[in-house]
Amino acid sequence: MTYDSDAARAFSRANGDRFLQELFEMLRIPSVSADPAFAGDVQQMADWLAEHLAALGLDKAAVMPTAGHPVVYGEWMGAGPDKPTVLVYGHYDVMPAVMEDGWDTPPFEPVVKDGKVYARGVTDDKGQLFIQVKALESWLSTAGAAPVNVKLLLEGEEEVSSPNLVPFIVDHMDLLRADVCVISDSSMRVIEEPAVTHSLRGMTYLEVWVKGPKEDLHSGFWGGATYNPALALAEILSKLYNPDNTIAVPGFYDDVVPLSDAEREMIARNPLTAEQFREATGVPGLWGDERYTIRERVSARPTLDINGLWGGYAGPGPKTIIPAKAGAKLSSRLVGNQDPHKIFRLIKDYIESIAPPSVVVEVKLLTTGKPALIPFDLPEMQAAARAYERGWGYAPLFTRGGGSIPVVAELTDRMGIPVVMMGYGLDTDGLHSPNEHYSIEMFERGIETAIVYLEELAALPR
Amino acid sequence: MTYDSDAARAFSRANGDRFLQELFEMLRIPSVSADPAFAGDVQQMADWLAEHLAALGLDKAAVMPTAGHPVVYGEWMGAGPDKPTVLVYGHYDVMPAVMEDGWDTPPFEPVVKDGKVYARGVTDDKGQLFIQVKALESWLSTAGAAPVNVKLLLEGEEEVSSPNLVPFIVDHMDLLRADVCVISDSSMRVIEEPAVTHSLRGMTYLEVWVKGPKEDLHSGFWGGATYNPALALAEILSKLYNPDNTIAVPGFYDDVVPLSDAEREMIARNPLTAEQFREATGVPGLWGDERYTIRERVSARPTLDINGLWGGYAGPGPKTIIPAKAGAKLSSRLVGNQDPHKIFRLIKDYIESIAPPSVVVEVKLLTTGKPALIPFDLPEMQAAARAYERGWGYAPLFTRGGGSIPVVAELTDRMGIPVVMMGYGLDTDGLHSPNEHYSIEMFERGIETAIVYLEELAALPR
Repeated sequence: MTYDSDAARAFSRANGDRFLQELFEMLRIPSVSADPAFAGDVQQMADWLAEHLAALGLDKAAVMPTAGHPVVYGEWMGAGPDKPTVLVYGHYDVMPAVMEDGWDTPPFEPVVKDGKVYARGVTDDKGQLFIQVKALESWLSTAGAAPVNVKLLLEGEEEVSSPNLVPFIVDHMDLLRADVCVISDSSMRVIEEPAVTHSLRGMTYLEVWVKGPKEDLHSGFWGGATYNPALALAEILSKLYNPDNTIAVPGFYDDVVPLSDAEREMIARNPLTAEQFREATGVPGLWGDERYTIRERVSARPTLDINGLWGGYAGPGPKTIIPAKAGAKLSSRLVGNQDPHKIFRLIKDYIESIAPPSVVVEVKLLTTGKPALIPFDLPEMQAAARAYERGWGYAPLFTRGGGSIPVVAELTDRMGIPVVMMGYGLDTDGLHSPNEHYSIEMFERGIETAIVYLEELAALPR
Repeated sequence: MTYDSDAARAFSRANGDRFLQELFEMLRIPSVSADPAFAGDVQQMADWLAEHLAALGLDKAAVMPTAGHPVVYGEWMGAGPDKPTVLVYGHYDVMPAVMEDGWDTPPFEPVVKDGKVYARGVTDDKGQLFIQVKALESWLSTAGAAPVNVKLLLEGEEEVSSPNLVPFIVDHMDLLRADVCVISDSSMRVIEEPAVTHSLRGMTYLEVWVKGPKEDLHSGFWGGATYNPALALAEILSKLYNPDNTIAVPGFYDDVVPLSDAEREMIARNPLTAEQFREATGVPGLWGDERYTIRERVSARPTLDINGLWGGYAGPGPKTIIPAKAGAKLSSRLVGNQDPHKIFRLIKDYIESIAPPSVVVEVKLLTTGKPALIPFDLPEMQAAARAYERGWGYAPLFTRGGGSIPVVAELTDRMGIPVVMMGYGLDTDGLHSPNEHYSIEMFERGIETAIVYLEELAALPR
C-alpha cells in the first residue's frame, strides 16, 4: 500500500466547506458538562459523534458509559500490527455560556465573521478534535487507508476536570493500548509560531463556605452584633496572598521544581510583554510575582485564583440583609512536582487556621488534576515538529502551557506512552470567555498538519 | 356626636375573620418594589388599596403617581376643624422573596399555622398598615364617625428607601397637613412588652465594583499575572473594620451623639442577652464593639454591613475563570447626627484610598435615609402609652429601633409634627427573612389599640 499525503491534503481542501458545516452541527449542541441542566445535550453530542465516526467507516464506534458523561470511542486498525497505533484524545464538552456573560451573538449558534467562527467550544475543543477526525477521513477517502492505526477517545467531562476518565482508562487498558497519544487542545501566540506544548499545569479546585446565622437577617435588627459571613469570607480571601504577590499558604511552594537557567532561556524565546498582555486581556495593569517573567508566571509557576464568589443579595436595588452564608470557588494551577491532594490539604489547613470566630467555615475539594511534563527530544515529539513544518508552514516552539488537561499526566503515568500536544488554537481565541472564536484558516491548516503527522509517525524507526 | 370605643372594639372582634381574609388578598399580591419584574404587581396592590379605602367611605381615595411606584391616599375629615388630624403612614411594598431563600411555603400564598400567618410582608408592613385601616373602619361602622380626622399615606417604595416620597410630600404639603403622624411598622420583644419606637437608624446604601480584564479570562492562560478582581474586592472589604470591630472608615463616628448615662439606663430596661440573640438568629457566636451592650449595638450604634457580594462563576461544579469584575452591596445604619451623604463620601474616599493598583474601583450611592430621634415626653407619645395600656393590655417601653424608616426624619423635619411609632410586630417575626410571619392575636390587639389611640388623641388639650 502506498500513502500519498498530497492527495489527502487536496481532499481536505476540496471538502473544507462541508467540514465546516459539520462542525457547525456540533457547535449547535450546547454540551455544557458543568451544569446538570445540559445533561441531555451532552448525551446528544456524544450520539452525534459516535454516528459520525461509524459513518466514516471506523470500527467499534460507540457511546460508552462512565459514572458521569459518556466517552465516545472509535478505531481504524487497518494499518496492521507492523505500524504504530496513535491514540487521539479530545473532548466534546464545553464551558458554560449565556448571552448575559457578554456574548455578541448566541453562543450556540455559530456565526462567521472576518474568517472566524464564533461559538462556545469552537476552539476548545470541538474544532480541534474535529481536525483529527477530518484528517483521518481525508486519508481513508483517498488512500482507502491511513499510514498508522488510529484510536479515538473523546470525552465529555474535560471542562469539569475529567472526574471519570481515569477509571474509564483503567477499565479499558487493552482497548486503548497505543504507542503514542496526540491531543489537539492547546494554542499558539501567532499563526507563524505554532507550539507543541510539553508541559501543563495541574489543578486543585475547591469551595470555601462561611456560615453564620441560620437564615438571612434584617440588617437593622441584628446589624452591629452579627459577624457578617460575607465580611468573614472577604477577610479569609484577603489573606491568600503575601504583599509580594506570592501565595501565603504555608508549604505551598515546597514541591515546586525550580526552573533551570536553560529552561528559562527557552521560555524567553516565546516572550509575553506587558503590552501584549494588556492588549489581549484589557487589564489596567500587570500583577504577580516579579521574580519571574510574565510568560513564566502564566505557564511555569503555580497560581491560586478566586473563580467566583457569592453571598446575600445581588439583584437590582437595595436589600438590607445580613447574608446567612457566603462562599467562593478557588483553584490553584500547579506545576511539577506539586501534588493536587497535598495542595488541597495545605489550603484547607491554612483557611481553617485563619477562619475568624463566630462563623463556621467549610472547605470542600471539587476536582484535582496532576501537572505534566513531557521531554521534547522524544522521536514522536520531533515528528510533530516536522509535521508542522510541512503541514502548517512553520516550525513549532516547544512551550509550557498554563492550562490544565488532567488526562495528560494520567496517560503518561498509566499507559507509559508519550503525549504529544499539537495545539491548533490561538491564545487569543477567547476560550472560556464570551465570544470564543476560531480562525477557519487555522482549522484548515490543522487538518493538513494532522494528515502529515500520521505519515511522519509511520516513518519512525520501530 | 358621642364616641364609643367599646362598640368599635366589639365590631373589630366580630369582624376579625373577614379582616383576615381581606389581609390575605393583599398578601397574595407580590408587591416587591426592588425588582422591576414586579412593577405590575406593585401597581395592582396600589389599585386594590385605593378601591378598598373608597369602599370604606374615605374621600379622595386614589392612586397617586410618583417618579417610581405610586402612593395610595385617602382621608376622612368628618371630625371637623376642632379636632386634630392624624396622618397615618404605611407601606404596601415588600422585600423580595423566593422559595429558594428557604421558605417552607410559597411566600405569596398566606398559610395559617399555630395562630400565625406566614407570608412575605405580613408583619412588614401589610398587616400593620391594615391594622390602621381596620381601626378606622371600626369607628366609621359603629359611630358613623371617628374621634379625629384621619389621612392615610401608603407608599410603595419603603423597602427601597423611599426615593420618591420626599418629593411627593413636598408637592402635597397642603393635602397631607396634620397634627401628628402615626406609623405602625415596628416591633416589640414579647407581647407583654409593647414598644413605642422613639429613634430609628438612618441609612447609606452603596455598591462597590472592582473591574479588571475586559471579560472573564481563562485562569490557565492568564492566571499568575492578572490581579483577580474578586481578590481585590476581598482585600477592600477586609479593611472595613478595625481589629476591635469598630468601623475603619476615617471620620465615620465623628458626628455620632454619645449615649448619655440616662439613656443607657433606659436601654438597659429592654436587654438583649447573648443567649436570646443566638436563639433568635442561630449565629455561632456574638460579635461587635464590646464597649456597648448587645441592645445598644443593634439599635443605638451605627453599622456597616455587606448585604451581598458577587463575581465570577457561582453555578454548579468548577469553572476555571478569572472574573472580569466583582462587586458588593454595602449599607451603613446611621444614628443621630450622622448625615447619610457625608457618610457616603467618607466611605467612598476610604475605599478609593485603599483600592489596589491594577484594577478599577467604582463606588456608587444607591439610597440614603436620615436617622430620627423623637422626644418621648410629647403629649402625643404619652397618649400612645395610654392607648397601649387600654387596648393592648400592657404599658409600652420607649425604645430605639435598629431599622430605618426614612420617612420619619423627613416628616419630622419638613412638616414639623411628631411621629409616633406604634409598632404591633414581634422582633422575631422574620421580616426581610424567609418564613416571615405575624401572630393573629397581635393583629387583633393592634386594631383595638389603634381604635383607642384615636380616642386618646381626640382627648388631648389643643
